[in-house]
Parts: sequence; C-alpha cells; structure tokens
Amino acid sequence: MQYFMKTLNLDLGNKSYPIHIGQDLLTQADLLTQHIQGRQVMIVTNTTVAPLYLAKVKALLALFTVAEVILPDGEQYKTLDTVNEIFTALLTARFDRSCTLIALGGGVVGDMTGFAAASYQRGVNFIQIPTTLLSQVDSSVGGKTGVNHPLGKNMIGAFYQPKCVLIDVDTLDTLDDRQYSAGMAEVIKYGLLGNVDFLLDLQQNIDALMHRDKALIIKAVYQSCTDKANIVAQDELESGKRALLNFGHTFGHALENTLGYGTYLHGEAVSVGMLMAAELSALEGLINDEEVQQIKGLLQKAQLPVSINSKIDHQDFMNAMRVDKKAINGEIRLILMKKLGQAFIGNDYQQHNLEQVIKDFL
Amino acid sequence: MQYFMKTLNLDLGNKSYPIHIGQDLLTQADLLTQHIQGRQVMIVTNTTVAPLYLAKVKALLALFTVAEVILPDGEQYKTLDTVNEIFTALLTARFDRSCTLIALGGGVVGDMTGFAAASYQRGVNFIQIPTTLLSQVDSSVGGKTGVNHPLGKNMIGAFYQPKCVLIDVDTLDTLDDRQYSAGMAEVIKYGLLGNVDFLLDLQQNIDALMHRDKALIIKAVYQSCTDKANIVAQDELESGKRALLNFGHTFGHALENTLGYGTYLHGEAVSVGMLMAAELSALEGLINDEEVQQIKGLLQKAQLPVSINSKIDHQDFMNAMRVDKKAINGEIRLILMKKLGQAFIGNDYQQHNLEQVIKDFL
Repeated sequence: MQYFMKTLNLDLGNKSYPIHIGQDLLTQADLLTQHIQGRQVMIVTNTTVAPLYLAKVKALLALFTVAEVILPDGEQYKTLDTVNEIFTALLTARFDRSCTLIALGGGVVGDMTGFAAASYQRGVNFIQIPTTLLSQVDSSVGGKTGVNHPLGKNMIGAFYQPKCVLIDVDTLDTLDDRQYSAGMAEVIKYGLLGNVDFLLDLQQNIDALMHRDKALIIKAVYQSCTDKANIVAQDELESGKRALLNFGHTFGHALENTLGYGTYLHGEAVSVGMLMAAELSALEGLINDEEVQQIKGLLQKAQLPVSINSKIDHQDFMNAMRVDKKAINGEIRLILMKKLGQAFIGNDYQQHNLEQVIKDFL
Repeated sequence: MQYFMKTLNLDLGNKSYPIHIGQDLLTQADLLTQHIQGRQVMIVTNTTVAPLYLAKVKALLALFTVAEVILPDGEQYKTLDTVNEIFTALLTARFDRSCTLIALGGGVVGDMTGFAAASYQRGVNFIQIPTTLLSQVDSSVGGKTGVNHPLGKNMIGAFYQPKCVLIDVDTLDTLDDRQYSAGMAEVIKYGLLGNVDFLLDLQQNIDALMHRDKALIIKAVYQSCTDKANIVAQDELESGKRALLNFGHTFGHALENTLGYGTYLHGEAVSVGMLMAAELSALEGLINDEEVQQIKGLLQKAQLPVSINSKIDHQDFMNAMRVDKKAINGEIRLILMKKLGQAFIGNDYQQHNLEQVIKDFL
C-alpha cells in the first residue's frame, strides 16, 4: 500500500507540535517514538477502542516500559473520578515525571488523558492518537483538556498541548456511520464559518467522503485542523475570534440540554444548530434562502439531521440558550453568517427573528 | 498604628505578581481589590482560619459578589475530592471564568485553592493570603499547587501563579508555637542554603524572632521569599537549581515516611533533616564541627527538634530515602553544604558517611 501522509506543524513557540494525518500510520514506529522523551509510556484508552487498536500501538513501543489503563466508554465517565483512575495507574506503575501519556480513542479519552497529563506531577508529556472523525478535527488543535462536573460540562480542565497528534484515518474503518456523520458536521462547520473554497470542495465531494474515500478524508481533516489552528492562533485564550468555532453550538447545546444529553450526538445537535444559525442569518437579510437550502442539502447528504423530531418547549429552549457558557449577562451571543464561508459574532440580531427561527424548528 | 509594608515584585513576564508583606494589611481594601478583575470572588478557607479572619477579609470586599467555602483543616483533606468541593461551590454560585479565588489559610488551603483556580474553567484568577509562617515563606513563590494521592504526596497539581500574595504577619498572632517554629525551620533553610548574611542575621535575632517581633518577621519573610524567587527564577521547571530548596528534605521526608505523617510537623522533620545534611557535609570534610554546632544551636533556639526520639529501622529509613521524588534510578541525591550559607547538589558523597549519619541519628 502506498504510504500517504500530510503533516501540519502547529507553531506555538516552545509548545509547537506536528499533526500527522495519513493512512497506515499505526505501523510506523518512528512517527510515534520520536516524540517520546523518557522510557515510560502509559496508553490510556477505553473498552471499545482497546480491542481494536491497543495491541497495534503497543507493537510500536517495544523499546519502552509500557503500561495501559482501559477506561469505560462514554461521556458519562468523563469525570474527575475517572481521571483519578489514570493517576492511580501511573502511581501504581511508579511512573515519574519523565513519562509520556498516549490518548488512544475519541474526544472523551483525549480530554481526560490530556488533563491527567497536565496534572500528573504538575505536567508530563502527552501524545494524542484520535480514532474518531470528531476528535481528529476537533481535539487535535486548541489544547483544551478536561472533564465534566455534575453541575456543568467541561467545567474542570487545563489548556495543555500534546507533543504530537497522530491521525491514522484507517481507524475510521471501525467507526459506525452515525458517529462518522457527527464528525462530518464539524468538518462542514469549518467550511461554513470561514473557508468558502473548502465548502465548495465538500459540496462536490460529500458523496465520496461519505463512502470514506481516504485521500479525501485526509484532505478534509488536514483542512479542518488548519482552519481551526488559524483561528486559535489569533486567540489563544478564547477572548474573541475563537468564538467563531462555536458556530451552530449555542443552538446545538440548547438542543442537547432540553432533549437530555445522549438523544442527539453532539455533531447531530450542531448540524441542526448550524441550520438554525443559517436561517437566522437569512431572516436578518445576510444570506439568501437558496444558500440556506445549499447548507441543508449538504448536511442531509452527510446523513445529518436538519430538523427536530422531538417536542421541545419554546421557553425551555430559550432558557437553555441563555445559560450557555458563551452568554454574557444573559445576552445570547450567536455566530451568524455574513455569507457562505464567512461567519461573525452577532449580537445585534432582531429578537423577533430569533423567536421566529425557534418557532420554525421546535 | 504605623502602617509598615515591604513589597517584593516577582518578575515572571506576563505572569508577574507582587508579594506584599506587612502588618495590618487585612484592613487595606485597595491592596486586595486592585488585583481582582471580575465581580465574583470565592474565598476558600478552613474551619480553623474562618472564625479568625474570614469576616475581616469579607469586609474588604463589600463591592463584590462574595461566596465562601470552608474546608476541613488538615493535610489528610488535601485530596482531589476536597478540590471538587471547591468546584461544586463555584458552580453552585454560578461563578464564571472571570471570577477570582482567594486562598485564606496555610499551605494546604493554598495548594488546593491554587489547583482549583488552575483547573476551574481551565484557569481563573487566584490570590493568596497565607496565614502561617510556613506558607508565607514557602507557598508565596514558585507556583506549585496541587493535592495528594493515596499513593503519593503532591502527585497531582499544576504550576500556576497567583495575581498577588498578601502576607499580613499579624495573622501569626493566632499561630501556635509549634507551627510557628516549624515555619521558622524553612526560614533558617534559606539562610543555610544560600545566604550567609541572612544566616548571621537570623543567628543574631533568633530570640526576638521567637518572641514574634513583627518588624523582624517582615524582614525575614521578605528575605526568604526573595531568596526562593531568585532560585526559582533560575529554574522555572525544577530541572536543576530548584533542587537546592530541598535542603534537609530528603532526610526529612524519609523521617516523615518512616514515622508516619503527623508525628513530626513538616518543618520539624526538615529541622532534623538539615542537621543530618550538615553532619554529612562535615563527615565529607566540607564544613567543620563547630559550624554543625552553630546550626544545631540556631535550630534549638527556634524550638525545633535536632534529634530523633522514636526508634526507626535503619533499612526502612534507607528505603524511604530511595523512593523520594528526587531520587534518580534509586540513587539518593542529597543537598549538601559547601560552607555555611552555600549548599549544592551532591551526588558523590561517600556511602559510608551517609550510613554513619543515619546511624548517629536513628
């Protein structure tokens, strides 16, 4: 098989790191081991991913002292208690501050492993091997790590950069269709919010992407990571521009909140949320109806929901939007579209247009 | 009363902060409030300190939304679970990422509050008001925050700098004699390891210091923080020079470990440990017996232990020294004295001299 790889180097001064994206990367020991400084390596994964890829990753680490911790799979385990299990595993193995943690799995494994790495002995090395499309395009860039608290999602964590991200798109072979589509929602988001050329590519290639054409996936993941990196670079601590990455998310979070987490996958809620944001942009006269239909068509081709099937109370939904982390003094700040491929942080939309969108969708 | 204050400005680039040291500082609202950016302030303290100083600090914050969390007192509560109580308090009060945490208490409160501040919403503001002599000279500088794990002390945490440290030496009025002496052990450490002039000052003024002469305490705390800052500045991530701060600590930790934590206060164990390090230095021919006696005399005047009253097994003690965090591949790295006021990281001492010191003390 041809060995095909693209590398994105994130320039973050002394925190710079490469993102390698390609096929068959989990057979290339050097790619991984060149980023490991000490001798001790802890692989953190979960019960779903371990049977699929743990042995493969361990085979790359023959020269190291390797230990593993296999966590239960699911967002409900993204807690401080689970991170403590990682600490217990590290201490039981007597790993010192020269050790390296490898996150092998999706976003939940990555977020927890990153936070454990940030906090173990006040910071040890960390490498990500994301195995879902969502984590490949979302968690590879930005340094966000952390866990949920019963009173709020992602409320505990750290900004902490990995030494390297290894994205083997072959791991997507074992991802189920629904999870794959949910990841594609975030890919489409990058096109919609800031890159019209990428959006046109996606429109053209969406069918092949849904058939999991690897070369196209590599390009799409590379472009998504590049776009995210450019936005994050302009705003390392989320004071302004980074908010663009929340396109569709305020609506999406409100959907997840009112329907209960787990009804929609995150990417599915974001899909509906992006369409709601597009429709509000149209009502504000920023884009036209045809453009809204284009967005809807793309999401549908990606097997993503574009409407809400459950009954949601209008007032509950508004309240959920108001408690979003990005709300300021109860004012709902939304990301709207100026045109296709160009989003902005909109605060002065007409309230009746927002009400209209919610009425149309609920 | 005369308002007397010394300020040490720590230059850490965009993480710079002042340490204000003086009397009657907890009546000066401006000193505190100028370092608070948002409107929400959470005071973290414990059941011992709250009745003494919580109302006083709250009185300085009339213009802010103030909440408090009062933790149980004691090193055994320095856990991830207790830090989670701080997160719960923050989320219950609906505090956002613009909030400020104030640590009001000793080292345990400071370490946990700092880690909570580092981790809440991936980092919020943090101010320290240390109320014990040990925390005033030890926790004010260096940015170490964290908690213990059942399998190891201080194994979980972050490097995180406060916005300001407010040291009101009047809070030492309520500190019991044993705790005060234990703090003085760390003050003496700074003289011994790197500042012979300070050591001479301490020898001259130890009686007045033990009578809690406030002007002398302010000077001693200022000098200790300055010396620590200079060492830390040369070594922000503890690769080399910072190890000097562990003078007496490898012996001290082994004492705490073999006797069980709580038999000695940390400063008391360090007192014996410093004398053991001095004796080893003498056996190595680096300092003379008279200098060892000078050190012993100073520690005794500070009401600190200079010998071990309990029975400890020689082999247990050696094992405890070998598992110290600073050991490398089981080699015991010790801080020895070249001369009074000048310590260095010693690796090539004679093993039989180390055995002799342990035999003499156990």
